[in-house]
Amino acid sequence: MAARIDFQTDPSRYRHWKLVFEGEVARLVMDVDENAGLFEGYQLKLNSYDLGVDIELADAVQRLRFEHPEVKVVILQSGKERVFSAGANIRMLAGSSHAHKVNFCKFTNETRNAMEDASAASGQKYLCAVRGTAAGGGYELALATDYILLADDANSTVALPELPLLAVLPGTGGLTRVTDKRKVRRDLADAFCTIEEGVKGARAVKWRLVDQVVPNSRFEQAVKDAAARLAAASDRPAGAKGIALVPIERTFAADAVTYSRLKVEIDRTARRATITLLGPDMPPPASAEAMVEQGARFWPLRLARELDDAILHLRLNEPDVGLLVFKSQGEPAAVLAFDAFLDANGSHWLAREIVHYWKRTLKRIDVTSRSLVALIEPGSCFAGTIAEIAFACDRSFMLIGGSAGDNRLPATLALSTCNFGAYPMGNGLTRLATRFLGEPASIDAARAALGRPLEAEDCERLGLVTSALEGIDWDDEVRIFLEERASFSADGLTGMEANLRFAGPETMETKIFGRLTAWQNWIFQRPNAAGAEGALKRYGTGVKANFNPERI
Amino acid sequence: MAARIDFQTDPSRYRHWKLVFEGEVARLVMDVDENAGLFEGYQLKLNSYDLGVDIELADAVQRLRFEHPEVKVVILQSGKERVFSAGANIRMLAGSSHAHKVNFCKFTNETRNAMEDASAASGQKYLCAVRGTAAGGGYELALATDYILLADDANSTVALPELPLLAVLPGTGGLTRVTDKRKVRRDLADAFCTIEEGVKGARAVKWRLVDQVVPNSRFEQAVKDAAARLAAASDRPAGAKGIALVPIERTFAADAVTYSRLKVEIDRTARRATITLLGPDMPPPASAEAMVEQGARFWPLRLARELDDAILHLRLNEPDVGLLVFKSQGEPAAVLAFDAFLDANGSHWLAREIVHYWKRTLKRIDVTSRSLVALIEPGSCFAGTIAEIAFACDRSFMLIGGSAGDNRLPATLALSTCNFGAYPMGNGLTRLATRFLGEPASIDAARAALGRPLEAEDCERLGLVTSALEGIDWDDEVRIFLEERASFSADGLTGMEANLRFAGPETMETKIFGRLTAWQNWIFQRPNAAGAEGALKRYGTGVKANFNPERI
Repeated sequence: MAARIDFQTDPSRYRHWKLVFEGEVARLVMDVDENAGLFEGYQLKLNSYDLGVDIELADAVQRLRFEHPEVKVVILQSGKERVFSAGANIRMLAGSSHAHKVNFCKFTNETRNAMEDASAASGQKYLCAVRGTAAGGGYELALATDYILLADDANSTVALPELPLLAVLPGTGGLTRVTDKRKVRRDLADAFCTIEEGVKGARAVKWRLVDQVVPNSRFEQAVKDAAARLAAASDRPAGAKGIALVPIERTFAADAVTYSRLKVEIDRTARRATITLLGPDMPPPASAEAMVEQGARFWPLRLARELDDAILHLRLNEPDVGLLVFKSQGEPAAVLAFDAFLDANGSHWLAREIVHYWKRTLKRIDVTSRSLVALIEPGSCFAGTIAEIAFACDRSFMLIGGSAGDNRLPATLALSTCNFGAYPMGNGLTRLATRFLGEPASIDAARAALGRPLEAEDCERLGLVTSALEGIDWDDEVRIFLEERASFSADGLTGMEANLRFAGPETMETKIFGRLTAWQNWIFQRPNAAGAEGALKRYGTGVKANFNPERI
Repeated sequence: MAARIDFQTDPSRYRHWKLVFEGEVARLVMDVDENAGLFEGYQLKLNSYDLGVDIELADAVQRLRFEHPEVKVVILQSGKERVFSAGANIRMLAGSSHAHKVNFCKFTNETRNAMEDASAASGQKYLCAVRGTAAGGGYELALATDYILLADDANSTVALPELPLLAVLPGTGGLTRVTDKRKVRRDLADAFCTIEEGVKGARAVKWRLVDQVVPNSRFEQAVKDAAARLAAASDRPAGAKGIALVPIERTFAADAVTYSRLKVEIDRTARRATITLLGPDMPPPASAEAMVEQGARFWPLRLARELDDAILHLRLNEPDVGLLVFKSQGEPAAVLAFDAFLDANGSHWLAREIVHYWKRTLKRIDVTSRSLVALIEPGSCFAGTIAEIAFACDRSFMLIGGSAGDNRLPATLALSTCNFGAYPMGNGLTRLATRFLGEPASIDAARAALGRPLEAEDCERLGLVTSALEGIDWDDEVRIFLEERASFSADGLTGMEANLRFAGPETMETKIFGRLTAWQNWIFQRPNAAGAEGALKRYGTGVKANFNPERI
């Protein structure tokens, strides 16, 4: 296992992907270096992937939005001759811990969702040009795009062979996207998922698995035509110049990670990490052009990138940290000023990208299987976008008045318009709408308090925090909560939180994280898949897996 | 383990429940006999329950609808002095196989859904009168009712202590109903689920956990008042007389179960059961009154009861049977005549009950974790309600023309109005609407064919069956399908089918079976819960469970 999995990369370091720019079209070429796996023990043959490959993909998808506003269509294609992608690497999966498999699937799901978000939220459309085999996670990559072209030859197929081949499920949304996005008839979907060799040609179109099949002789032209059609429907800004996502600033210590506007402190004995977000260190820029000029230094973007990286780091590199404690430091009014700036410049492409990036980062928090708590104390700046983090938490505690020996003003929380629509959860509702599902009038009451600094008892009365506590109770109650939480079963908490966080409607996204993931996690533990005689372990040995036939 | 778990019972045999009738109100009194557990090794103390207790509850809920149309309100209460119910018996859970735990939870969920269905579909409202502790499954019983009254005393509480006490989740819809039915704010729900001792008094109302708290001195009157209010809102028929759900006819052999209108044949080597439904042996009665006169002999009701029992028998007693093959024998026109009769008498209480019972039985099939296939051959009667079973299947094969040496007419399938609304799935859509999610025009095409006998190629063209096959291909293709299905991993199939069967919207029901159940099944396998040092195993030993802190 690598010492630390790093989610930061940039195109100059890519081993597995190439980005080629052709005006309003970009080509995202998958050409996996089979000898550059993240861990030892497997080769990434046939454009199969591991977490390292997906970290590069996530980086590319992100850069396409921020660095290339001119790109209207991204063509996802393979750089290999006879294969599109064989999906997640099986030997990697077979050799991974349960935790790594689960976290790997979660991150790859988030990346595919990010592709769909680029299309839905920013008009940067994805098109998948499949030549050769797109199997398992390979086809799931295609499923995350807006339009799938399949070469009409003897070799090009789409397949979800996980069940027949490996006794597991497609782990990156395949089942959900087949039935709910592409709306494949359920019996055909069932048949498709049991055909190890996949489906090709006209049948793939008839079953709605791809949008178009084209003979090789006309394939490249058809891809270009489809790209042009998608580009014509895109609302990407004309003439905009991207900003550079320069490396984020961070230093790692044994029990801390320090970013420019965020710090993570880990208490290993207590199994918790405290994430402190720092408010703005400057006022909003004077104009949208000045924001572009600031680029990655622009506070909301800088903080979102650092927060995103911190969450991913904790997920993968600190599995025993069960509790994330969110704190903040700064001026609430300064945060609100940035929210107002983003709101006022909502039609500017970069402001739009930043808001959607915060949306994705907040969603990343929502599906993080750690307990989440916000501690709102004097000197904090839980306002607007930063307050949204408190609403993402399982619990929030707010101190009434000051604490002994602290002459700062009492803590306040403030709402901005960003709390009422900019950051929908996976279920399609805002966090406040989800929170107040049973009392919609509370949303109106919160809206009426927009912009006002709300002290602890106001927040409790408005239902915006779980508890407002006097100083004398604060220490005890918070300590008891933190200790109690650390005493519970990690797995039980994961299941409970995955259920309680997403009241209300379901979407493909919540189905993928709630339903498909839960079944996959179950199967990932079952002997039929993961046991010594299971399909994952026996894959490629020439010996058939030995299955317990019991149906559960 | 008992030789065979029997789902048939009647009030004269109840050990754990009493039904008391007071005009339009019935009291369903839980008074569990602690020495009458279904298996050895535990006592059902404190009104805790096992599958045997729930089989009686399911029977009571069913009889209340059919035998007591006069009952408008069912008051669920405890027969014990200081406890409402301690929920599922922990020693039973700790001593059960993974498969039994999962099947136990599935059945108890179906029973609670049946209570909600009685209220929503038939105006038979449920009211829960909680005195004493309602913990875990005890509170989940209350959650399945329309109105919860809690005694306001030092002893009466509601609680979901599964996580802190046992490291598992509430297994009978508790998390989903707390957030989605009662719409408890998520942070309060989180707090509630970690408070082992539960919540009582005014706080229980404030948190929306119960509807009303009442001091003991006024409790009984408040229950009566609430019952009267619910009764006033009920549309149960006035003056109707119920029918007796007489014992169903069946005989068990080593590899077969024979019912009056259904037979089950088990091929253990091939690990499949063939369920053959027999069409009507008489025409529909002349009138609704004549239907009441026939009572449980009325063909649609008789068949539904037999099918329901067969499915439950296979689930619990035949875990290695991975594939259910549905066949039918009879006259399609005769089936359609019964559908027309039920449709024409839709406003009659008994017709309504029978249609809703079919709806529930079909849903029971939907959530059965076995592969489902319909074989539609000459002599079959897949029409209307019986055709709906084919639409519940993962695949369906239909023979074109006749088979060699068989001079019967070619198989036909026919649709009735029942296929277009009477039997919604858990997702709220009809099976045809779910099937044709991607091509709504196909629903119109199917509707245009209403009542017409459709031969195999028509059915394939209309998308009503997976494959229409010539005799020469039939034997091979069906054999290959059956063998292939038996060769796949049981767990992988379970996960795949649970995902593919429920495209489209989600409801509390699909969340409970899809999301909550999947997480619970995962947790039921984790060492923190089920291991030798896990919380389930160590419960009551005085030794604390030893948890792996790793978050996954």
